[in-house]
Amino acid sequence: MSYDMAGTALAAGPAGSAPSGPPAGPLIAALDIGGTKIAGGLVDADGTLLHRLQVLTPADGDRHALMAAVDHVLDNLARLPAWQHVRALGIGSAGPVDIAAGTVSPVNLPGWRGFPLRSEAAEHPAVRDLPVVLGGDAVAMTAAEHWRGAARPYRNALCLVVSTGVGAGLVLDGRLHSGPTGNAGHLGHISVDLDGRPCPCGSRGCLEGLASGTAIARTAAELGWRPGPDGDATAGAVATAAGAGDPLALAAYDLAARALATGIAATAALVELEAAVIGGGVAKAGPVLFEPLGRHLASYATLSFTRGLSVVPARLGTDAGLVGAAALARPALPAHR
Amino acid sequence: MSYDMAGTALAAGPAGSAPSGPPAGPLIAALDIGGTKIAGGLVDADGTLLHRLQVLTPADGDRHALMAAVDHVLDNLARLPAWQHVRALGIGSAGPVDIAAGTVSPVNLPGWRGFPLRSEAAEHPAVRDLPVVLGGDAVAMTAAEHWRGAARPYRNALCLVVSTGVGAGLVLDGRLHSGPTGNAGHLGHISVDLDGRPCPCGSRGCLEGLASGTAIARTAAELGWRPGPDGDATAGAVATAAGAGDPLALAAYDLAARALATGIAATAALVELEAAVIGGGVAKAGPVLFEPLGRHLASYATLSFTRGLSVVPARLGTDAGLVGAAALARPALPAHR
Repeated sequence: MSYDMAGTALAAGPAGSAPSGPPAGPLIAALDIGGTKIAGGLVDADGTLLHRLQVLTPADGDRHALMAAVDHVLDNLARLPAWQHVRALGIGSAGPVDIAAGTVSPVNLPGWRGFPLRSEAAEHPAVRDLPVVLGGDAVAMTAAEHWRGAARPYRNALCLVVSTGVGAGLVLDGRLHSGPTGNAGHLGHISVDLDGRPCPCGSRGCLEGLASGTAIARTAAELGWRPGPDGDATAGAVATAAGAGDPLALAAYDLAARALATGIAATAALVELEAAVIGGGVAKAGPVLFEPLGRHLASYATLSFTRGLSVVPARLGTDAGLVGAAALARPALPAHR
Repeated sequence: MSYDMAGTALAAGPAGSAPSGPPAGPLIAALDIGGTKIAGGLVDADGTLLHRLQVLTPADGDRHALMAAVDHVLDNLARLPAWQHVRALGIGSAGPVDIAAGTVSPVNLPGWRGFPLRSEAAEHPAVRDLPVVLGGDAVAMTAAEHWRGAARPYRNALCLVVSTGVGAGLVLDGRLHSGPTGNAGHLGHISVDLDGRPCPCGSRGCLEGLASGTAIARTAAELGWRPGPDGDATAGAVATAAGAGDPLALAAYDLAARALATGIAATAALVELEAAVIGGGVAKAGPVLFEPLGRHLASYATLSFTRGLSVVPARLGTDAGLVGAAALARPALPAHR
């Protein structure tokens, strides 16, 4: 089996590409497993990503093909000289996950249903003596933003990934709140419209069905917006049109922002939040999303203790998955125990 | 100033009405402050309410009149022989509260806006050497149900009080989650219908506007339901009619149950819950509420980690306020520190 392996040494730090000299401290190996790619990296104790490599996910593969791709990433990480300083492995995976059982059932990877990813990864020869910590990808992103990104100043925050779907995670009382099975913060499937459109999850009026990139593109089409000569009808193209003042494109983003505001306000009422951090492809729309979001949040988050909520863009971008996977494993480092 | 003081010794326990014999352990004094009554009690270390007394709340009074009523309850509690064993004071108050600041601003008590209830209570001569802990009434009820009631078996639970309004509190990872200002669990004002009816809070489609007793009575009237010869058009009368099969009364409870299911499912998706505990006057409707609630919950709580949620009635009834206020103060007992 061969993989198109793309790898980068990202920092010239002591534990990274320089073979001479001792590293500054222990490293954490990180895996970020999604429907499109499986990324691996080494992260230092400060949250700096030192190496990054990735393969395409064999999304239609069976359980063995998927695990072979993971093992291939681990093989290549383990060949780095810096691997000798690795003291834990963190894995962020597309969900749902069950961190109590150590299993994953990613919606977009039908070959894995209740797959024991944690114990299978622990069987890799290079991993055998390491603690392995598993979490969901949105919870991992939240851990990353709280460790090194936009959620760092806050003890209570909701971190959202708004892209094809809507995922999120929670920081409560200064700590990641992942819930017993690791799925807490599942904002995409709360109903903000109890009589709304049926959702593939079985419920109705789910936030994701109004606010995801997929939903924005659909809303725009339903409102009568039509793409330009390039035929691009994605949420990104709708954002460009909205930025140029197209009223139908603006209306599609306004509805998405209203649904997000409803969900963020609900979360703030339920657990008390200081901030909502918003990342993912849809957040790249910038003011086209953030302007109506702020406006609608002012009308839905009206309670004395929800009014002061800050909304800020995420900071870590594509590295958030690996930095977050490492953040999940930090408590398992010998120094932290 | 005179009060119609009603008091009861509730248990013949060692710390209670028997003047002879030492008490089994420390006691907690408890205050439950609502728009209708101000109750006081003594609670032992096992959560048993030993004494209870109450006065009517001078709801239209100014800040001094309201505090005088509280002091009067404290005076009478402090006269009990068992007071000598009191080691902490817990206060549950109608909200919103701000436990960081120690203040309360109860919606139904306009005389108190940002009133420093914690420090004012601490000034009472009998309280001066005691730790004083303040919390919201729904959070106190949650603490009570988790300590001594229906939430006891669960590490993650939402406890609701469905009556004139809808209040709630959260237990997460086995501990009360009150949030920085003490208002977490504010389920009544999450929007379950982003295009819904404007709510006095300023938002729209709030759960309380569909599921409270007030809302049930209004929905029934709007659907065309009419009360019997006694003219009773309250949610309780609608429940009786629904129990007898009246389709309009059943429809009013069905809508309330659907809104509650939406909110409970949203909370379960956001924080992961094992159970929802439902108390308050509306819960007394029994199957008229719980049957459609279970049905709708099955259709809104569809995620792998929300499907197994239990819905159970609250157990503590009218004592929950005082037992809960004591539960809030438990961590301040010398033995707990």
